[in-house]
Amino acid sequence: MSPSPLLRVHWWLYLLLVLPFLAQAADPLPSWSDGPSRHAIMTFVGEVTSEGSKGFVPPAERIAVFDNDGTLWSEQPLYIQLAFAMDEVKRLAPQHPEWKEQQPFKAVLENDLKTLFESGMPGLLEVVSATHAGLDTDALLGNARAWLARAVHPRTHRPYTEMVYQPMLELLDYLRANGFKTYIVSGGDVVFMRAFAEEVYGIPPEQVIGTHYLSRFQDQGGRLSVLRTPQLAHNNDGPGKVESIELIIGRRPLFAFGNSDGDLQMLQWTAAGSGKRFAGLVHHTDAQRETAYDRDSSIGHLDKALDIAKADGWTVVDMAAEWRQVFPFSPTTSGQ
Amino acid sequence: MSPSPLLRVHWWLYLLLVLPFLAQAADPLPSWSDGPSRHAIMTFVGEVTSEGSKGFVPPAERIAVFDNDGTLWSEQPLYIQLAFAMDEVKRLAPQHPEWKEQQPFKAVLENDLKTLFESGMPGLLEVVSATHAGLDTDALLGNARAWLARAVHPRTHRPYTEMVYQPMLELLDYLRANGFKTYIVSGGDVVFMRAFAEEVYGIPPEQVIGTHYLSRFQDQGGRLSVLRTPQLAHNNDGPGKVESIELIIGRRPLFAFGNSDGDLQMLQWTAAGSGKRFAGLVHHTDAQRETAYDRDSSIGHLDKALDIAKADGWTVVDMAAEWRQVFPFSPTTSGQ
Repeated sequence: MSPSPLLRVHWWLYLLLVLPFLAQAADPLPSWSDGPSRHAIMTFVGEVTSEGSKGFVPPAERIAVFDNDGTLWSEQPLYIQLAFAMDEVKRLAPQHPEWKEQQPFKAVLENDLKTLFESGMPGLLEVVSATHAGLDTDALLGNARAWLARAVHPRTHRPYTEMVYQPMLELLDYLRANGFKTYIVSGGDVVFMRAFAEEVYGIPPEQVIGTHYLSRFQDQGGRLSVLRTPQLAHNNDGPGKVESIELIIGRRPLFAFGNSDGDLQMLQWTAAGSGKRFAGLVHHTDAQRETAYDRDSSIGHLDKALDIAKADGWTVVDMAAEWRQVFPFSPTTSGQ
Repeated sequence: MSPSPLLRVHWWLYLLLVLPFLAQAADPLPSWSDGPSRHAIMTFVGEVTSEGSKGFVPPAERIAVFDNDGTLWSEQPLYIQLAFAMDEVKRLAPQHPEWKEQQPFKAVLENDLKTLFESGMPGLLEVVSATHAGLDTDALLGNARAWLARAVHPRTHRPYTEMVYQPMLELLDYLRANGFKTYIVSGGDVVFMRAFAEEVYGIPPEQVIGTHYLSRFQDQGGRLSVLRTPQLAHNNDGPGKVESIELIIGRRPLFAFGNSDGDLQMLQWTAAGSGKRFAGLVHHTDAQRETAYDRDSSIGHLDKALDIAKADGWTVVDMAAEWRQVFPFSPTTSGQ
């Protein structure tokens, strides 16, 4: 009962036509070219999820942590949260006539980025505090959502919520499909990030960890709220990332991704765990499709962590070579 | 082809014998008598989980928060964590000869609870800090686990991890089976609670929120750890519970359970959310099977919250009347 030669030809033709599409549909990381980073990620995930294998890790322990600025979304030419803070200063300026003469607010109102940056971290923090503290959490969430709905990126003119890295969106989905719990652990403000993290990344509020102000429960004649006082409670950068991971997650991550020296301790803490661990860096090497920056940049400064990554065999993603697509709206390159 | 009369009899006999067991197995809350609290819980869960109904709440928003001491496990005659701290002071005493003459440590070493309690909150905090801070998180976790493995409750002589309320274990399971994420939000130390919460309650470390000390990442020649400094960072009681819920969960709970005035703000915050919310109190009314205490007790003081619960129609569990079983090892009463 062998099939007729004609049927056999059809069967082969069918496979030849359909298989490539099936393969593409099944590829969980289509924006990653077939390079070393993609290989390292898939090998690692395969090992920790293979039941019965030596490297198997139970789902409850599959914690993945991601930096946000420069790792999941763009941080050039300016941290997006700082763009929000500057726009908020302009919006609130009529209620603060003193800002016209008072630095660093004067610089913000005059779009004088040079003077603003010369004010250093204290100056930048003053602008952030003036817009992120002294109000209750619901009010800040509302302000952030309203701004994200109207603001656009100065270069692409796209909403900021589209300035996210397509390959990293795929990575988040891929990890979750493999039983990982995905967290953001970022220097960004925790409430600001919650304004978009669930919708944009599929990361719920309780898996967003960030910088925050000392908060105070308020009962104003039965109207309950949580006030953010102007007192910074935790700067979630560098060693602060490990401290908040230990406090809030209480379990060492299995997988971590960052892009700057501010992520170094989080990556080291992850890599130093028992058994196999994954530590990765997004290296911004793509001047054409994004921005090329590392050792000389003040935003996303990547120097020491790059050396340690290379010495310790962490995964360093060469954006130009390994990402076939950068943003969801940008074209796909053929890759390698 | 109808079955023989004999077979039919067997079939009926089988059903008569097996059905009651099936019905019992299907009851998610067997230790709760058929009283108002059980009814309120099941009605609420039924409403928020009925897809298409007006009260439906998506799983992502089904956050349930529980106090621990007196709500999930025993707090009489002493907070279990304080029993741990006292035993730790005794264990560490050889390294602290000064404690023999120094209050409140002298009182601890002499089992003089009266003097210890007269030292008030500052004194108790000193005992807790001496045993819960100044060491790294892994060391504390190890100390707590070692103690839990050897210590027993002074009245029941059972391990403390068995001093948990059977009806509350069933409630936690029932909520999780209905898509709720269950959290502990307790005045207890966050690391101490993580030493048993996953094994005993099925609550993973990242869903345990508690009191904590300011922590510092340490890199000692490549040995990484997180030190708990002696500086208290957050007292997770009263309004502090709302502040940590807003900071760490970032979403208002749908369901909350407590047992004392220290849970009042958490219950109010929960109840004041939009749509239907559940706020419940465990009322310790059972002098025979546990301990009867409320308005006059310093541990588990329940006064203002009891009045507000009654005025606002929250669920108040009458332990004596509504719990058919108290601890997993204790006998089941017939209930009502």
